Amino acid sequence: MKSNASPATDRLLYAQSGGVTAVINASAAGVIETARAHGVKVYAARNGILGALRETLIDTSKESKAAIAALRHTPGGAFGSCRYKLKSLDTHRAEYERLIEVLRAHDIRWFLYNGGNDSADTALKISQLGKAMGYDIRCIGVPKTVDNDLAVTDCSPGFGSVAKYTAVSTLEASLDVASMADTSTKVFILEVMGRHAGWIAAAAGLAGDHADAPPHLILFPENVFDEAAFLAKVKATVERVGWCTVVASEGIRNAAGQFLAEAGTRDAFGHSQLGGVAPVLAALVKDKLGYKYHWALPDYLQRSARHLASKTDAEQAYAVGKAAVQYALAGMNAVMPVIVRTADAPYRWKIEPAPLSKVANHEKKMPRSFITRDGFGITAAARRYLAPLIQGEAPPPYGKDGLPAYVQLKNTAVSRKLPDFKP
Amino acid sequence: MKSNASPATDRLLYAQSGGVTAVINASAAGVIETARAHGVKVYAARNGILGALRETLIDTSKESKAAIAALRHTPGGAFGSCRYKLKSLDTHRAEYERLIEVLRAHDIRWFLYNGGNDSADTALKISQLGKAMGYDIRCIGVPKTVDNDLAVTDCSPGFGSVAKYTAVSTLEASLDVASMADTSTKVFILEVMGRHAGWIAAAAGLAGDHADAPPHLILFPENVFDEAAFLAKVKATVERVGWCTVVASEGIRNAAGQFLAEAGTRDAFGHSQLGGVAPVLAALVKDKLGYKYHWALPDYLQRSARHLASKTDAEQAYAVGKAAVQYALAGMNAVMPVIVRTADAPYRWKIEPAPLSKVANHEKKMPRSFITRDGFGITAAARRYLAPLIQGEAPPPYGKDGLPAYVQLKNTAVSRKLPDFKP
Repeated sequence: MKSNASPATDRLLYAQSGGVTAVINASAAGVIETARAHGVKVYAARNGILGALRETLIDTSKESKAAIAALRHTPGGAFGSCRYKLKSLDTHRAEYERLIEVLRAHDIRWFLYNGGNDSADTALKISQLGKAMGYDIRCIGVPKTVDNDLAVTDCSPGFGSVAKYTAVSTLEASLDVASMADTSTKVFILEVMGRHAGWIAAAAGLAGDHADAPPHLILFPENVFDEAAFLAKVKATVERVGWCTVVASEGIRNAAGQFLAEAGTRDAFGHSQLGGVAPVLAALVKDKLGYKYHWALPDYLQRSARHLASKTDAEQAYAVGKAAVQYALAGMNAVMPVIVRTADAPYRWKIEPAPLSKVANHEKKMPRSFITRDGFGITAAARRYLAPLIQGEAPPPYGKDGLPAYVQLKNTAVSRKLPDFKP
Repeated sequence: MKSNASPATDRLLYAQSGGVTAVINASAAGVIETARAHGVKVYAARNGILGALRETLIDTSKESKAAIAALRHTPGGAFGSCRYKLKSLDTHRAEYERLIEVLRAHDIRWFLYNGGNDSADTALKISQLGKAMGYDIRCIGVPKTVDNDLAVTDCSPGFGSVAKYTAVSTLEASLDVASMADTSTKVFILEVMGRHAGWIAAAAGLAGDHADAPPHLILFPENVFDEAAFLAKVKATVERVGWCTVVASEGIRNAAGQFLAEAGTRDAFGHSQLGGVAPVLAALVKDKLGYKYHWALPDYLQRSARHLASKTDAEQAYAVGKAAVQYALAGMNAVMPVIVRTADAPYRWKIEPAPLSKVANHEKKMPRSFITRDGFGITAAARRYLAPLIQGEAPPPYGKDGLPAYVQLKNTAVSRKLPDFKP
């Protein structure tokens, strides 16, 4: 067995996991810049945990200082990410053991896994198995998810920027609808992400703060969709305001528990899972109320819109990357840097370590107290929580061509040392 | 008959027409600030030409200097717009005569109509009928349309910003898809506006400038949709690049001339016009190629995204508003300020008057030479034309709340002088 003595250079492996965000690369920048400052070399796994399993590693020391700094304003996942869940040690034992072998083969002392609940669980298991297999690997989680459903942390890096995109888009589209409503669209429906929790939909509520300001209705996955109440409120809004903006979470369900997006539409080929709750709601508005409608479904645009990132979010994403390295170097294991809110207004926050065991596989629900009694709006408590998260702008630099100057890394491969492995 | 002698204050009526844009209010700012500088009072018609017919006029002199300046960075139509086409003098004679009566009742000497082809036609007819009815009204068009289909002018204010939004969104979403393609979405479809011309779709081509850069396919309404060629190119792209971004104009049609958006889908209520060519294409990709897909349909978000406006576009929108007033005060009639390109690189432009008769009811097609031979991309000529239009950023100021500081005018009504009229 190879010893755990330090190699010539200390090495750290960083991997991105699950759906990417507008600021996950800011966490990568935080990791790499902090590691470099301490003389630690960072390898990145290509396409997330799959890269660690396949031993397709990237040597980030081949990237220039400027390229790493540019990660701070570049959306997407610079090294690739993946959707691949490692389940229990029993079902996926070969994978876990392979991970340890790869880490050992490259003298990697620390594994930093940038993801959500599942990733926290994976990182925790790797640290446990490493110990059992006699390889001392320290695992640190780095929080990330647009869904804002990570436990312990006050908010999840990635969420603030999609929240800002959603609030700004709601405001802008509503100005458009308001000016045309006399002869054109009366009801506008914006569909946002959030299959299980209404965090993103709730953020749309920041677009306006009085009764007749948009959005007039928010449809949360926390509530059963009530067609009659929905139609009544849309009708009352159009009659009072002249038009109506609806923000709908993709995850809303009917009383039978079916996703509305799947229950309503069927295309020419008979597929039922095209997605899109917005067109279903639009059809309802047209059919039952006769109003002209438009709908939008920004999909990936909302989670990749680095051009409209929240400064708060971008700073927190960097800070958790930086703290993860500091924790690793301080000898911590099986922890995740989390964001602790110390004040609402003016907003203050700090970073603290939390045990991965408290984060892994937990899901933070949106408090019921964040939704107004009629079910279609957000409360003052929700505003207090959400408002700081969209504060500040952190626009990327733009080139002369009018496009954001996003970086494309070289992603130089590390020489492989092990036989193939098919996850 | 009332005389045409100047009233105590010279008055100008400004109206917005048709679909609004991210920068139409910049034209309004150009009109009002220039008029104020010359001691001319500006009335605005509420909800476009309908406000002129109904005599629901707004006195913009009640707005502060700061509020008018803020129009320069506020999307939507600040006084309301409408879709209402005045046809020939024969069919709509009562409306035309009513317009003259309203202009006369309020001693309005100039009518500035901010819109597209139809509006140019209406403005022309009003100037002709005024003369016939013995009321000397000068009509000036102010160009506006995201569709970029206005004749004579090199480009249309409003287009540059939607072009920039489209190119940036294509780039950002593609970074997202690229990083996840190994285990997740392989084909991403972005549906953009453009029912009859592919100008907006073409602008997406600015996101990348080499063969494997996104977007990999652009579907133009100028081409008949060729399912086999589409699928073959998507497949080849996924096999070569690993993923594929498609940008589709909402107006693409099949060989039978049907809009794909209408031919393909039918919802639970039997409606066929829900819109959305993206889900139809997605179903095709899934059905014929088996790839995981995602699609986005930003709809109004794209034409109201003032937060991502092109500086070039915002400046041109202001300039045409300013020039329209200058032309009016110089005694011109039945003209429109148009943008003349004097150099591609570095881009230079100027404003010149063009007769409304040359603009009215003409439609500028996208040159066939802008589309590559295979039908799925843009040529160097297209890049040369499009590139300058998205150059520069003109972000709005943001409030402490993290939202753009868009202005809501008071829109104080002018006292009515005439009996009701139902258009």
